[in-house]
Amino acid sequence: MSSSGVSGTGRGRGTVVAPGTVVAVLRITALAGGIGGSRFLRGLLRAAPDAEVTVIGNTADDITLHGLHVSPDLDTVMYTLGGGIEESQGWGRAGETFAVAEELGAYGAEAQWFTLGDRDLATHLVRTQMLAAGYPLSAVTEALCDRWQPGVRLIPMTDDRVETHVVVAAGDDDGAERAIHFQEWWVRLHAEVPARRIVLVGADQAKPAPGVLDAIATADVVLLPPSNPVVSIGPILAVPGIRDAVRATKAPKVGLSPIIGGSPVRGMADAALKAIGVPTTAAGVAELFADLLDGWLVDTVDAEATATVEAAGVRCVAVPLWMTGPDTTAAMARAALDLAEEVRAR
Amino acid sequence: MSSSGVSGTGRGRGTVVAPGTVVAVLRITALAGGIGGSRFLRGLLRAAPDAEVTVIGNTADDITLHGLHVSPDLDTVMYTLGGGIEESQGWGRAGETFAVAEELGAYGAEAQWFTLGDRDLATHLVRTQMLAAGYPLSAVTEALCDRWQPGVRLIPMTDDRVETHVVVAAGDDDGAERAIHFQEWWVRLHAEVPARRIVLVGADQAKPAPGVLDAIATADVVLLPPSNPVVSIGPILAVPGIRDAVRATKAPKVGLSPIIGGSPVRGMADAALKAIGVPTTAAGVAELFADLLDGWLVDTVDAEATATVEAAGVRCVAVPLWMTGPDTTAAMARAALDLAEEVRAR
Repeated sequence: MSSSGVSGTGRGRGTVVAPGTVVAVLRITALAGGIGGSRFLRGLLRAAPDAEVTVIGNTADDITLHGLHVSPDLDTVMYTLGGGIEESQGWGRAGETFAVAEELGAYGAEAQWFTLGDRDLATHLVRTQMLAAGYPLSAVTEALCDRWQPGVRLIPMTDDRVETHVVVAAGDDDGAERAIHFQEWWVRLHAEVPARRIVLVGADQAKPAPGVLDAIATADVVLLPPSNPVVSIGPILAVPGIRDAVRATKAPKVGLSPIIGGSPVRGMADAALKAIGVPTTAAGVAELFADLLDGWLVDTVDAEATATVEAAGVRCVAVPLWMTGPDTTAAMARAALDLAEEVRAR
Repeated sequence: MSSSGVSGTGRGRGTVVAPGTVVAVLRITALAGGIGGSRFLRGLLRAAPDAEVTVIGNTADDITLHGLHVSPDLDTVMYTLGGGIEESQGWGRAGETFAVAEELGAYGAEAQWFTLGDRDLATHLVRTQMLAAGYPLSAVTEALCDRWQPGVRLIPMTDDRVETHVVVAAGDDDGAERAIHFQEWWVRLHAEVPARRIVLVGADQAKPAPGVLDAIATADVVLLPPSNPVVSIGPILAVPGIRDAVRATKAPKVGLSPIIGGSPVRGMADAALKAIGVPTTAAGVAELFADLLDGWLVDTVDAEATATVEAAGVRCVAVPLWMTGPDTTAAMARAALDLAEEVRAR
């Protein structure tokens, strides 16, 4: 564990302490999907402004559109923490315009169901160009973050191609199936077509991006924000080596339920959970991660689930989990860090 | 020469004639650069609305920017004839916005001196994606023209990479030289740095795009619009086979001077002519093409140049050559077609 001597001025990383005292900077590593994860991270930075936060971002939602490499989850983290997010929807750029998309439509271009805004598109142009020049996605992400200064170190889960595909019925009548890109199922079909299976294409061969395993191994706390457990947290843990690293780290591992009262906080996690046969409950999601969790936060409406979760060996506490604003979200993050300290002390 | 029987309704290609009369559709093939060529072509379509016009477009100005394949001259023809051009400047899209370019600037992207508008950028996205999928530029251009319906068949001079590079002094003091892309010299340096030589990278190995040689061989008239002779018409003729095809075709070949009274009509053709040691005069440019021209139009202010041009074996007529509006431009085109008929009859 690194530490830093904080001077008597009280300026610098770490809390204000007497001169000569050695203060450890809390190192937090979080696994994050898109909107839910990003909003939680913003609360976390408010709750622990002096912490060194590393975010391992999901890239299995990445998609190539109009020849551009789009990384929706990485960008949502970057824009949210960097102050560029469209707050009303939780994704995309504030003040966005759509001139390029309109023109692409006039050309009859495909994938009109996934509209890229003009401002957002510049990010994908820079990313695509850097990837074409041979930079790995992790280096590209670092370069993009140079501009956004998200206040965290953002690392993609892998530099390799992993894509979440959803297996659906090919037609109405027969048993034939077809696999479609997660974004097509999620954005174009609004997850209304039943998902029979979720397939993580390329996950078997993927390697964690540089820094991922180290960030987990040397963390003081590992957090699982309230992201979609199947298509956000799931793919990160599916990259060979990451789940084992989370299990092996000495840091307490605490997660927050993305399910409140039997429904997803946002999005369509229920449709994804159904595909893998997991009940849409706070306890059901905890069970998915029971092998690696030390602590699990459920919402107060799910207080009765704590016993079930604790029976699986995971310390479980019920606190308000609606991210209604900066204060409530920071309180959630604080509760997660408190739970981490509690399980660490055990 | 193909011909079409025009029915008594008077509807169809060709002029209105008595039933049973066979009317030949005039087939015109023009070599075109960007702004000057495009404006002339608009006048040509007004002067000869029933003609079948094939345009062989310069691609040596093409440049890769932000990973996108930009074909400025092809696009200027397409936008001008398709009604999408920004009339005030003669290039780019009408009603253009620049959200992507501003964002690229915020990322510190290179080549900010060549600003791509949002609307325009969609064209480059479609082109780049089709090229990456393996379509040749000629097929891509045809696909883009499906939308724009320019009223001509637009064919790039080649599907191969040819790039105009400009050799300039590397520094102030020594004799060292460096070659820069034409666009960098033209757009970033405003052609203010003296061009020592013009180099057409790749021209030796390039092949004419499908349809180019046939359009020249089967044309009734071949036109050289008032485009930059060095960096617009020059590269087209430099593609092996094209200059020979123009010389060999039985069609009369008529050109229009882009120089009026010793100055370029627009742009910086004088700087380019200086680089190849050709005087910036109507007669000087005619001499560049004397081996293939049957007729040459100069402006009325250059009437005294006609004798010089005719001495080189090229019929030369002085008419107003300022493209001040649709009527004057159509009159120029009509004069060119009249000159073609005159030299054909000789």
